[in-house]
Amino acid sequence: GYAKVDHQRGVRQGVAEVVYGAGKTPAQMAGIVASMRAAGQERVLVTRLAPEAADELRALLQASDPLAAEAFAYHELPRFGLVGGLPEPDGNGPIVIAAAGTSDLPVAEEAALTAEVLGNVVVRLYDVGVAGIHRLLAHADDIASAQVVVAVAGMEGALASVVGGLASCPVIAVPTSVGYGASFGGVAALLAMLNSCASGVSVVNIDNGFGAGYQASSINHLKAK
Amino acid sequence: GYAKVDHQRGVRQGVAEVVYGAGKTPAQMAGIVASMRAAGQERVLVTRLAPEAADELRALLQASDPLAAEAFAYHELPRFGLVGGLPEPDGNGPIVIAAAGTSDLPVAEEAALTAEVLGNVVVRLYDVGVAGIHRLLAHADDIASAQVVVAVAGMEGALASVVGGLASCPVIAVPTSVGYGASFGGVAALLAMLNSCASGVSVVNIDNGFGAGYQASSINHLKAK
Amino acid sequence: GYAKVDHQRGVRQGVAEVVYGAGKTPAQMAGIVASMRAAGQERVLVTRLAPEAADELRALLQASDPLAAEAFAYHELPRFGLVGGLPEPDGNGPIVIAAAGTSDLPVAEEAALTAEVLGNVVVRLYDVGVAGIHRLLAHADDIASAQVVVAVAGMEGALASVVGGLASCPVIAVPTSVGYGASFGGVAALLAMLNSCASGVSVVNIDNGFGAGYQASSINHLKAK
Amino acid sequence: GYAKVDHQRGVRQGVAEVVYGAGKTPAQMAGIVASMRAAGQERVLVTRLAPEAADELRALLQASDPLAAEAFAYHELPRFGLVGGLPEPDGNGPIVIAAAGTSDLPVAEEAALTAEVLGNVVVRLYDVGVAGIHRLLAHADDIASAQVVVAVAGMEGALASVVGGLASCPVIAVPTSVGYGASFGGVAALLAMLNSCASGVSVVNIDNGFGAGYQASSINHLKAK
Amino acid sequence: GYAKVDHQRGVRQGVAEVVYGAGKTPAQMAGIVASMRAAGQERVLVTRLAPEAADELRALLQASDPLAAEAFAYHELPRFGLVGGLPEPDGNGPIVIAAAGTSDLPVAEEAALTAEVLGNVVVRLYDVGVAGIHRLLAHADDIASAQVVVAVAGMEGALASVVGGLASCPVIAVPTSVGYGASFGGVAALLAMLNSCASGVSVVNIDNGFGAGYQASSINHLKAK
Amino acid sequence: GYAKVDHQRGVRQGVAEVVYGAGKTPAQMAGIVASMRAAGQERVLVTRLAPEAADELRALLQASDPLAAEAFAYHELPRFGLVGGLPEPDGNGPIVIAAAGTSDLPVAEEAALTAEVLGNVVVRLYDVGVAGIHRLLAHADDIASAQVVVAVAGMEGALASVVGGLASCPVIAVPTSVGYGASFGGVAALLAMLNSCASGVSVVNIDNGFGAGYQASSINHLKAK
Amino acid sequence: GYAKVDHQRGVRQGVAEVVYGAGKTPAQMAGIVASMRAAGQERVLVTRLAPEAADELRALLQASDPLAAEAFAYHELPRFGLVGGLPEPDGNGPIVIAAAGTSDLPVAEEAALTAEVLGNVVVRLYDVGVAGIHRLLAHADDIASAQVVVAVAGMEGALASVVGGLASCPVIAVPTSVGYGASFGGVAALLAMLNSCASGVSVVNIDNGFGAGYQASSINHLKAK
Amino acid sequence: GYAKVDHQRGVRQGVAEVVYGAGKTPAQMAGIVASMRAAGQERVLVTRLAPEAADELRALLQASDPLAAEAFAYHELPRFGLVGGLPEPDGNGPIVIAAAGTSDLPVAEEAALTAEVLGNVVVRLYDVGVAGIHRLLAHADDIASAQVVVAVAGMEGALASVVGGLASCPVIAVPTSVGYGASFGGVAALLAMLNSCASGVSVVNIDNGFGAGYQASSINHLKAK
Ligand SMILES: Nc1ncnc2c1ncn2[C@@H]1O[C@H](COP(=O)(O)O)[C@@H](O)[C@H]1O
Ligand SMILES: Nc1ncnc2c1ncn2[C@@H]1O[C@H](COP(=O)(O)O)[C@@H](O)[C@H]1O
Ligand SMILES: Nc1ncnc2c1ncn2[C@@H]1O[C@H](COP(=O)(O)O)[C@@H](O)[C@H]1O
Ligand SMILES: Nc1ncnc2c1ncn2[C@@H]1O[C@H](COP(=O)(O)O)[C@@H](O)[C@H]1O
Ligand SMILES: [Mg+2]
Ligand SMILES: [Mg+2]
Ligand SMILES: [Mg+2]
Ligand SMILES: [Mg+2]
Ligand SMILES: [Mg+2]
Ligand SMILES: [Mg+2]
Ligand SMILES: [Mg+2]
Ligand SMILES: [Mg+2]
Repeated sequence: GYAKVDHQRGVRQGVAEVVYGAGKTPAQMAGIVASMRAAGQERVLVTRLAPEAADELRALLQASDPLAAEAFAYHELPRFGLVGGLPEPDGNGPIVIAAAGTSDLPVAEEAALTAEVLGNVVVRLYDVGVAGIHRLLAHADDIASAQVVVAVAGMEGALASVVGGLASCPVIAVPTSVGYGASFGGVAALLAMLNSCASGVSVVNIDNGFGAGYQASSINHLKAK
Repeated sequence: GYAKVDHQRGVRQGVAEVVYGAGKTPAQMAGIVASMRAAGQERVLVTRLAPEAADELRALLQASDPLAAEAFAYHELPRFGLVGGLPEPDGNGPIVIAAAGTSDLPVAEEAALTAEVLGNVVVRLYDVGVAGIHRLLAHADDIASAQVVVAVAGMEGALASVVGGLASCPVIAVPTSVGYGASFGGVAALLAMLNSCASGVSVVNIDNGFGAGYQASSINHLKAK
Repeated sequence: GYAKVDHQRGVRQGVAEVVYGAGKTPAQMAGIVASMRAAGQERVLVTRLAPEAADELRALLQASDPLAAEAFAYHELPRFGLVGGLPEPDGNGPIVIAAAGTSDLPVAEEAALTAEVLGNVVVRLYDVGVAGIHRLLAHADDIASAQVVVAVAGMEGALASVVGGLASCPVIAVPTSVGYGASFGGVAALLAMLNSCASGVSVVNIDNGFGAGYQASSINHLKAK
Repeated sequence: GYAKVDHQRGVRQGVAEVVYGAGKTPAQMAGIVASMRAAGQERVLVTRLAPEAADELRALLQASDPLAAEAFAYHELPRFGLVGGLPEPDGNGPIVIAAAGTSDLPVAEEAALTAEVLGNVVVRLYDVGVAGIHRLLAHADDIASAQVVVAVAGMEGALASVVGGLASCPVIAVPTSVGYGASFGGVAALLAMLNSCASGVSVVNIDNGFGAGYQASSINHLKAK
Repeated sequence: GYAKVDHQRGVRQGVAEVVYGAGKTPAQMAGIVASMRAAGQERVLVTRLAPEAADELRALLQASDPLAAEAFAYHELPRFGLVGGLPEPDGNGPIVIAAAGTSDLPVAEEAALTAEVLGNVVVRLYDVGVAGIHRLLAHADDIASAQVVVAVAGMEGALASVVGGLASCPVIAVPTSVGYGASFGGVAALLAMLNSCASGVSVVNIDNGFGAGYQASSINHLKAK
Repeated sequence: GYAKVDHQRGVRQGVAEVVYGAGKTPAQMAGIVASMRAAGQERVLVTRLAPEAADELRALLQASDPLAAEAFAYHELPRFGLVGGLPEPDGNGPIVIAAAGTSDLPVAEEAALTAEVLGNVVVRLYDVGVAGIHRLLAHADDIASAQVVVAVAGMEGALASVVGGLASCPVIAVPTSVGYGASFGGVAALLAMLNSCASGVSVVNIDNGFGAGYQASSINHLKAK
Repeated sequence: GYAKVDHQRGVRQGVAEVVYGAGKTPAQMAGIVASMRAAGQERVLVTRLAPEAADELRALLQASDPLAAEAFAYHELPRFGLVGGLPEPDGNGPIVIAAAGTSDLPVAEEAALTAEVLGNVVVRLYDVGVAGIHRLLAHADDIASAQVVVAVAGMEGALASVVGGLASCPVIAVPTSVGYGASFGGVAALLAMLNSCASGVSVVNIDNGFGAGYQASSINHLKAK
Repeated sequence: GYAKVDHQRGVRQGVAEVVYGAGKTPAQMAGIVASMRAAGQERVLVTRLAPEAADELRALLQASDPLAAEAFAYHELPRFGLVGGLPEPDGNGPIVIAAAGTSDLPVAEEAALTAEVLGNVVVRLYDVGVAGIHRLLAHADDIASAQVVVAVAGMEGALASVVGGLASCPVIAVPTSVGYGASFGGVAALLAMLNSCASGVSVVNIDNGFGAGYQASSINHLKAK
């Protein structure tokens, strides 16, 4: 009785259920996965899953639902556990994930894999921080042909504004907690992104790669008239 | 030489240029409007325009470009000056603007009129704060048929989460500075919206109705395959 | 001499003394428990008690006061040590504890068990976060028949406002430190709750399930005319 | 159509409707009052009403609903407009409002008059700040016989803790924005009150005398078994 | 006796004395100017001087030191009063002042005129915000040939990082209080600039154009070996 | 050459040198102690000294200066290392150290032992938090006869205000980091103490028992006329 | 009944009563002054008194207590109203008030005049900010012979640390709200002073010159053995 | 593909590439070092390198590029890995690094070694905190003959202001995270430095010794006319 699994949500929101792994025990997660699969959900994503917890979860699934255990894969960078593999992409176009630095990759991959799990083609532009602007400009074409851009950056978070100026499509900005001192765990980047002077930029929580990937996918699957 | 008007932006981003009126003198604004119209831009939106500044701007246009002055209208609630009237809507579907309370209307109207200027049909759901949840639930159909929802709220900003749970389309949340004491000028609502447990919610700056309307329009005009 | 145990308080305030375990050594706690029992206090609650400290406390009681040791139970989720078992409920009606997510359970249980120790019937509504509002609405009856509701939520803390709108009885809101990034360890939820647009909501400190349970009980034991 | 007046609320929450005056024009307020009275609500309270706005409101009522205008009174200290006079008290016992200093009186009176409008007997203990503790102790009897205490203080907000220790009934603490420098507009008092080491204290927003009076009344009207 | 005028400073720091006008009465400023000129200082700069205070200062000088009054000029944008005109530039090379938006001009001009008063050639690059990156890139040559660049921006403050990446000379970043909502009066830009991922960027206080111009001049006047 | 030991300070400020242990290696501390003793300083206090570092320091002294090692004692609660024992008290009167709760004892003892090392008689009043005000009032005589009072409290820090009202001598308030949630590591108590409505209260840094003891001693050793 | 005048305080704390003028009407102040004088208090100090309020107060006194009106003087810089003139100094020695800049004078004078009203000799060292350290060092003798030093500074608040190093007597630091941008209304100076690496420095609230003068006087009047 | 190594930067900005070690694996760092050396870069600096990561990096280089491994040295205090040794100094003059306390040394050394790696003569003035001002004044000559001064301090950060007043050359201030309580991890020092009343002071991020050393070198290598 610890969780009221929201089976209607898959229907109501048009996507597979996602389990937020942080603060849940492997046993709780296994129970939720079981309940979902029993309700007919083939693909289940567990986010914020530590490597050790992933091992325990796999073992528990092995015991209770061997098919799920077989279909389970762990992705280290984004710390994702995925039951069921990636679907065929069925979005309107490519989603570009642009990330400023090497240390932002876990968050960028959280966004990228989320989008892939939800049926999108993802183009990755990594290490394109604005202190070397030519690296980003070299990919102006990718940005121009994107349906949505996700801009991931820590420290001063300036990437969102520059990308926002180059792109004519919606940009979702993800501040990361990368940095030290006056970055205040991502607050500097968050504020910068909220104050972007480029139009068409909205923002999700610090390190919330999942939220950005989800919103990007949701935009990319809208039906046009 | 006080401003490098970015004529390419209209072309590059597919929308009309917008002038951010705050901190500009009527003379500066008249100059920018003139320059834009000279470059062929028919419709120009001036945001954050105080009523007195609007009067001065109209007078200046009267002198320099009577056609522009005639085409100029001032909208009090969103504090917008608009040269050129509303276009025919050409988006993919309706944009819903939901606002929590009476005091949030200026920001909600900033979003709504921005979206209309950019060619969208707007459905307004006002005074649907979550302390009387039935008021919002009564409009579940509007939310279900929206292409994008813009959720506008001050104080505790809870509207974004409830709307985010009801909607399967993208939700853009706008925190407002409505409130007192520990609302800290909109910070409470901003934080609530960034931490929304509903997927598919992204956030713009406090009171940035323009930004939300712009991004909503941008989403609503994406070409599907 | 490290503590002036306040034996009068039980009398003055009509409830058993509670020991705040955080920052006390097991020896200090055992000494306080002994002093209370010597003063005639049968039931003693130790809050914020780590599992290892609970073991040490039990061992110390075993040596000094075997009856207390026997009567001692440890509750893992709320991290409570309780000497003396639960009393018969004697409050005016049921206290509803509503919690938004699985990760909020330790705080919710801290409130629930506190209320039970102080002589109340507790109705638990768990996993009723507002992003799936139907889960909460399904329990509107429980809320309507409550004497007091305790609303426990982290992240955006929106539960307090929705519950506050549904309930006509007093609501005590408990923000939790559940969340990440811009939740700032519970600050986002705290601010949201303080700014609730629903009347009849008051707030306690972040993660202070005990304080909420205590006040709820105090309300539930008021004598009517 | 600017406000969906929530006529159900009176029924659902058992009290008269209250209009939050801040940010509403006199015309909007007059409209809401009219709608409420048309729906059968005899007594209407308008909070946060500036003196000039009160004059305008009275004039508007004079024109549209002379009976309402006659029944209208303005209370300067709490900045309240009240249509309909005070009801007979029908609560379980007295509500004590304790305030630390002269500057806290407007907030204290906001709480006191709210409670009186909602049918409570109010005992006022003013200028009982803790820097002269004997002033408070001289009223220990009032505190002991209260059903609820509302503790109102700015600056360091210590009153809540001392009252919380003296009272065995619930205490609602109201931080005020009285102070300067590091009081940060009431934040110092708010934090102090949230961290009160006395049990049985909950807190409302800075300067929210209305919220405290409402919650106190709600507690004072609970039906005992 | 209200001010110990620091006549040694001119000598010790190699530049003319500057009077910080904020919070000084015109009489105090006139007294300080008199004392400086008596000590042989020909050129005196008064910063943060409101237009009305400038008029009063001129009148007072007129009475006491007509030569100073004649040599006095008021510069509106940077709010500077200058006795003595601009000197011949004698720095090592040009100082570039880059500003993001129209609203940043007062601060940019405070930096520019400070540098000119201290003997520097200034190149102004205004309205080169990063949301239209081509505007900045069009001036890459100016940046490449600068001895120092001062980057002035409010809102998200991203200009400092992009300029920092383009420039090989030192960059002094000035956050401005331009913006609203989560710009928090310049804090967002300040944090962004402190966290710049480009090397060679240091930062001065919000709106401190004077400090940036002073530091730039100081760098530009260093003697090489 | 890592430290310029300030031998003049003992002379200039009339007290023994104190070594701030945090962030120094045992070897650095041993070197500083040696240098001080070589300069004739008999008594040396090392503050913020972890137990393990104390052991290492003793061992190093054993090797280099056996007399110092013999004269060395470690005090666990305040985490002090003391070479040379306590002096005869020679202050003007007693210093009272009042502490709110058991968890504040380490800081209170830091203040108390500092004062004793500097030649003062200390009266300890512990566990006198204001939620049980009678505990403090029972010691009104001690407070009345003190030369200085040091008030130590975490959480809401209200003790300083109540003590400040009772005492006619100077009160030094020490906020502690005791608490959780919105105590923000001592900030709530710090703000409360800075805003004390009692006159004659000044404040030191969070957990700075040493600073309070030092200033109390300095006050207690002033020569009267 | 708006204020419980604390006549015992004069006796209990050994000093004249002080009225905190902020937030009180002239009528309230006149009433309090009357009540004090009726209770035998000859000298009454009203702090934070605006010039216009002083005029009204004088007029009210003129009507009700002409002797008090005659004995009333208004001091503009510290915004003090004083009934009764300065007493003969009877402290142990001189109190030095050191202030960093011209803009800090109102706060410095609040401290200075408070100390004089309470019977102290005051030595004023003004405009001795640390950016021209020789100005302060030129007064090392005054600092050496002080019984207490009050250090008043805004902006970076560094004066407290330098003075704290030079003085062997207690130093009371007063941060002022002088500054702009990241001075955050005195927070930068407050934090600097709380973190002073000099021993013997304690701090009062931002702009609280009164509190510093009071505490200094209290120290300066202690009886030695 | 994890990093777009910016080989042009060495050319474009005239200095060697620097690898920011924090958040990179030894394998990633070895790859980047290899790529740089392949591109002809002889000297490579790795900052924020933990001792264990340094050992791993050396081992990896040993395997892949024995010459690099031989040329690799690890500097413990600044946590630097350096391939290639120090160059001949070729700056315009000496850079002075002044540090307030022993605990600031790691950051001071980060600045010092960075400057040496970039070809500068460095003069170290350590343990010259302002609480013993004579220690700093004893080195007035060094400061007078510097081309640039880097001022490193935690806690109250006052060193920057005093040094700024003594120096006529540019001063770069580095706040450190040294301190506790209200130092807030370096924020107190950062704010103090940003608010320095001395002209000619600019600031870098908390603990950013590298940034200060880099900019100091950049200033010291400017070509004069
Ligand atoms: N109310 C607003 N809030 C935020 N951004 C705005 C607003 N109005 C206009 N903008 C943006 O500001 C740009 C124009 O800025 P400017 O060149 O200063 O007039 C537009 O292209 C929009 O991106
Ligand atoms: N002074 C106040 N502070 C906080 N909430 C208030 C206040 N006055 C009224 N309210 C609340 O605001 C609601 C009315 O809001 P509205 O519909 O905007 O007039 C009332 O039902 C109360 O819950
Ligand atoms: N706008 C400004 N912002 C910051 N510092 C300034 C400004 N104008 C002048 N100053 C500094 O203030 C000093 C003069 O301060 P004062 O003696 O109070 O006039 C000058 O030497 C400058 O260092
Ligand atoms: N400027 C001031 N700042 C802080 N506290 C003050 C000030 N002036 C007076 N006080 C304190 O306020 C008390 C009087 O407050 P009240 O009873 O409200 O007039 C005095 O006893 C002082 O302790
Ligand atoms: Mg764009
Ligand atoms: Mg949704
Ligand atoms: Mg309710
Ligand atoms: Mg109580
Ligand atoms: Mg550069
Ligand atoms: Mg006192
Ligand atoms: Mg000292
Ligand atoms: Mg200088």
